[in-house]
Amino acid sequence: MRTVQVSLAERSYRILVGGGLLSRLGKECARLKLGRRCAVVTDEKVAPLHAAAVLESLKGAGFEPLLVTVPSGETAKSLKVVAQCYDAFAKARLERKSFVVALGGGVVGDLAGFVAATYLRGVAFVQVPTTLLAQVDSSVGGKVGVNLPAGKNLVGAFHQPRLVLCDLDVLKTLPDREFRAGLGEVIKYGIIYDAPFFRRLEKSLDRILARDPAELSAVVARCCAIKADVVGQDETESGLRAILNYGHTIGHGLEAISSYGKYLHGEAISIGQVAASYLSAALLGMPGQDVERVRELFFRAGLPVCVKLSPAQRKALLEAMRLDKKVSAGEIKFVLARGIGRVEFGQSVPDELVNRILDRIEG
Amino acid sequence: MRTVQVSLAERSYRILVGGGLLSRLGKECARLKLGRRCAVVTDEKVAPLHAAAVLESLKGAGFEPLLVTVPSGETAKSLKVVAQCYDAFAKARLERKSFVVALGGGVVGDLAGFVAATYLRGVAFVQVPTTLLAQVDSSVGGKVGVNLPAGKNLVGAFHQPRLVLCDLDVLKTLPDREFRAGLGEVIKYGIIYDAPFFRRLEKSLDRILARDPAELSAVVARCCAIKADVVGQDETESGLRAILNYGHTIGHGLEAISSYGKYLHGEAISIGQVAASYLSAALLGMPGQDVERVRELFFRAGLPVCVKLSPAQRKALLEAMRLDKKVSAGEIKFVLARGIGRVEFGQSVPDELVNRILDRIEG
Repeated sequence: MRTVQVSLAERSYRILVGGGLLSRLGKECARLKLGRRCAVVTDEKVAPLHAAAVLESLKGAGFEPLLVTVPSGETAKSLKVVAQCYDAFAKARLERKSFVVALGGGVVGDLAGFVAATYLRGVAFVQVPTTLLAQVDSSVGGKVGVNLPAGKNLVGAFHQPRLVLCDLDVLKTLPDREFRAGLGEVIKYGIIYDAPFFRRLEKSLDRILARDPAELSAVVARCCAIKADVVGQDETESGLRAILNYGHTIGHGLEAISSYGKYLHGEAISIGQVAASYLSAALLGMPGQDVERVRELFFRAGLPVCVKLSPAQRKALLEAMRLDKKVSAGEIKFVLARGIGRVEFGQSVPDELVNRILDRIEG
Repeated sequence: MRTVQVSLAERSYRILVGGGLLSRLGKECARLKLGRRCAVVTDEKVAPLHAAAVLESLKGAGFEPLLVTVPSGETAKSLKVVAQCYDAFAKARLERKSFVVALGGGVVGDLAGFVAATYLRGVAFVQVPTTLLAQVDSSVGGKVGVNLPAGKNLVGAFHQPRLVLCDLDVLKTLPDREFRAGLGEVIKYGIIYDAPFFRRLEKSLDRILARDPAELSAVVARCCAIKADVVGQDETESGLRAILNYGHTIGHGLEAISSYGKYLHGEAISIGQVAASYLSAALLGMPGQDVERVRELFFRAGLPVCVKLSPAQRKALLEAMRLDKKVSAGEIKFVLARGIGRVEFGQSVPDELVNRILDRIEG
């Protein structure tokens, strides 16, 4: 088992990465000195696979877990489902010292984390991410929230988990498409922060796609360590943390205009990162061969690298991007790369150039 | 104008207390280096009285305010109204640097503050409380939130305002009943923290009830200073801050069982504080003459000091109290007084004694 520390003063916590961790959950929670009652929030797809093991582990350590199952998919990240969770918590008399276990992918983590951040003005929560994407990205760093009809993640909070438990065994049952989508975030860490890690991914991609346990363990732990490092320097995204959004401005826009239906998040940001790399070449002089390596790695990972939009969709995309949280004084701010491993945030990009790059990646 | 400082490191802010402050709002907001766009959240009763002055002041300082008017009364503290505010903010393209002005009583401040705490994971907000209760209590300290069907303030956050502006002129138009309800919190500060202040209130109550500006200024500023002092020592209520809940366990219970309809908050906690004082006499030896002085001052302020409940209501009250956020390991924790000016939190009280005290104050 590998341990990654997220250092945020009194909000510090550990990320555990390894096999067979679900059965350790109860014991690890017991170390945190939380109340006895807790809620396990999961979704309809994950519940049949892992809820029993989690409940058993918690009960074995003396906890009294309440199981709350929400619909699966991005539509569960809604205020309606938030309200249903609140009502379930209140009915079960969860108290200030009670805690919430988020068992699932990014949707469950974001949703359950937001409920934990706001129920009784905030109770503790523990992330048990069951997708690759959630393990390397959304479960770490404390960003929680839900969507509005007007856009993704427009409502939320910063609420750090008390523990993140990445059980690599659960990745074995992950559908292929979801596993590949997770690689969209994995590759991102190479681009934004760690050129040698990017090279490693280029070399070991086939082993990763075969879900080789040793390679997965190293990769997941390295991604978590990069995220922990960035978040430790800028918890609430006043600056550096923005680099984690590489490819996300266009990616979120694509998700919004397809009503979160067509693309998985990791797929949308794959297209977004390819587009951001072309923008980077145009504006920050990112070398053409780096752009090509980026495009190639996403392609080899089985992720989409081009998109064809009608003029109406194009207009809707630019409109959706303007609603992104990263807009400042009406202007969209991009994260762009000087090369693989070196990015800069807060970059202005004219609409005209975005349009030109979208032409370029029509594929 | 008096200034009270709330010292919370990088979240510190000033409370301004005085006449004619609404027209200074724009200028004061300009000092805070916030974005140009903002939302003024107010209710249907306050809007016709003060919205024009607030909007004019903000526009005069170069801001672009959006007016959001919510229904008046406790029922506006709901997730439904929260969602309406989010949608209005998103439609107006409020950004991370935008801010929210809460113009109204405690309901508006709690609601708008919660929306500000969670919209885009938190934007700045400014409190402009228009009731005595909001000026001396709810606008200071960063507790924001809304109600669930299951209970009051069960959802919320700690989100400190960037500025609190207590314009004493707005109290002139406050209905008598609301003004008196505000005294429910004013008197509380004497009981929990400041025996000389309690004596001052006993002496100057008639001048306060006549809304004498000089006396009001001193009283509001002293209450804010006490609250700032307590919150500065314990922002998130891990301990000391609980003393601010004197009389609130029974008070909240009374509000809950009457569906927030019969009593104003200040009235419910008046009964609650009288009950808490009797409990204090029984459990902590609060002198009988102190209990009598407490009862007498609430009575002179025109606040209810007794309550008659049917057996079914009695049962519902105890049930509602058990849903209070202050419950720990299933046990209700009370704040009790050793005497006027000296209280202790975290006190256990047997149901049987609560029942006996409720018999006592049937009046």
